[in-house]
Amino acid sequence: MRVTIIGLGLIGGSLGLALRAAGGHVVTGWDRDAGSLALAIERGAIDQAAASLAEAAAGAELVVVATPVMAVRGVLHGIAEHLEPGTVVSDVASTKREVDAWARASLPEHAPFIGGHPMAGAEVAGMAHARADMLDGAIYCLTPRPDTPRWAVERLLSVVRDVHARPMETDPALHDQVVAGVSHLPLLTAAALMRVAHGSGDWDALKFLAASGFRDTTRLASGDPVMQRDICVTNADEIRPWLRAMAEALGEVAGLLDDPAAMGDWLQEAKTARDAWLDWKQAGRAVDVAE
Amino acid sequence: MRVTIIGLGLIGGSLGLALRAAGGHVVTGWDRDAGSLALAIERGAIDQAAASLAEAAAGAELVVVATPVMAVRGVLHGIAEHLEPGTVVSDVASTKREVDAWARASLPEHAPFIGGHPMAGAEVAGMAHARADMLDGAIYCLTPRPDTPRWAVERLLSVVRDVHARPMETDPALHDQVVAGVSHLPLLTAAALMRVAHGSGDWDALKFLAASGFRDTTRLASGDPVMQRDICVTNADEIRPWLRAMAEALGEVAGLLDDPAAMGDWLQEAKTARDAWLDWKQAGRAVDVAE
Repeated sequence: MRVTIIGLGLIGGSLGLALRAAGGHVVTGWDRDAGSLALAIERGAIDQAAASLAEAAAGAELVVVATPVMAVRGVLHGIAEHLEPGTVVSDVASTKREVDAWARASLPEHAPFIGGHPMAGAEVAGMAHARADMLDGAIYCLTPRPDTPRWAVERLLSVVRDVHARPMETDPALHDQVVAGVSHLPLLTAAALMRVAHGSGDWDALKFLAASGFRDTTRLASGDPVMQRDICVTNADEIRPWLRAMAEALGEVAGLLDDPAAMGDWLQEAKTARDAWLDWKQAGRAVDVAE
Repeated sequence: MRVTIIGLGLIGGSLGLALRAAGGHVVTGWDRDAGSLALAIERGAIDQAAASLAEAAAGAELVVVATPVMAVRGVLHGIAEHLEPGTVVSDVASTKREVDAWARASLPEHAPFIGGHPMAGAEVAGMAHARADMLDGAIYCLTPRPDTPRWAVERLLSVVRDVHARPMETDPALHDQVVAGVSHLPLLTAAALMRVAHGSGDWDALKFLAASGFRDTTRLASGDPVMQRDICVTNADEIRPWLRAMAEALGEVAGLLDDPAAMGDWLQEAKTARDAWLDWKQAGRAVDVAE
């Protein structure tokens, strides 16, 4: 397949490396940063660099926009008039409803858009950190619309399978609601915890006694703040109810601290739920391997 | 030194293994559970088992109570009349103010008490999981009172150093305030996050998309809920202000979600604080190694 990747950062670069490792594709790359483009060629993440955004769009069977979410809108707008009939367009942004609306507004009908969200990443960014196995085993959400032609979905699916990711089709709105709970709320919780500890008058003592529990609970706060910001502002409506629920849960437990029986139940319920989830994940992976 | 360890769980057992590895000590053990006591002998965590709590207390130079925090009170009460003059008593509980008050109320003046809190642990519990290197490099808080004789503090310090932990002396009240922020708040945050996600109507979708970020942010929720409960109820007054601050931080960020610039700053500040803390920790460890 002729695949064009626009934006050769951590995910775009890893997608390129994985597609070239899988074989059977001609991968064209484009990045507004010449250094990233040169590194992508050097590392073998793309077969060739396009000379312009227009050239990157023309002639591709699949265009994957792998820029930060706030840049996706401009890229879609920029490639729209250069897309040939039958080109499928996708992206890798962490939020899908707003991106889907941008695509509806910008792209011609002859170039169907299907949102994509590979659930993979790292605390590092950029082409330099891309890895051919980054998408290996990762859940890869596809968010087709009800009217998206099936052949277009199948084309994107075949690429997702080629890079050994696990495709999951869902509605853009449900996707955003769910990732707000499992990704964006944990991120904001981690950052809030870090801010609360650091902003307290006792930080000079706290920093000595903060250990692995604090380190892990705040881990997400060390991610890329620009990417995080873009995710949050494009999913604000879905995140707010989760933040409210979280603040309520903290208020609830504050009221239980003097009641050992209720406190024990509250903690036990959390442990039971988490352990069951880990067991379920583990069982799922075992099945995958057996396939 | 003649050291008695009462309670041969993860920490008590690891302390015994480390002391016997260090050499120069005679370690006596006691546990109300005969199986743990037998396993402690089998694994070489203690030289000998005491026949009773009274026998465990008598003749020791240092008694370390390593039971869960809610059991410490009864143990202190039980050993009080059997302690010989000059015996130093300590514990390993995660909260120190309440334990210190129990010790003041129970122990004779001729047996000075110094609270202890080795900042080490694991998601697993019990003698079976004890390790000789568990306290290696761990911060070990000592909470002497202003009137605690210095020879008693030195005796406990020599044992802390023998097991390669890093002693830190602090006031019991300051200790509890600080660990409420760096340990108990992260724990309750992790449990609240797990409860909020699991309790939402979307858990059947959430559980698919929850990945490493969710897993790490909720990790502490899989700990021992009995130990966690005891920690929380003995430190309720210190935990409440942290819970309020955390709920406020979540409310604050909910108000910034539509403001990209403010949102970016809020996230960047968290990242800067966390990265600086990790660098500082790293530098500290490097110095330790160089020593």
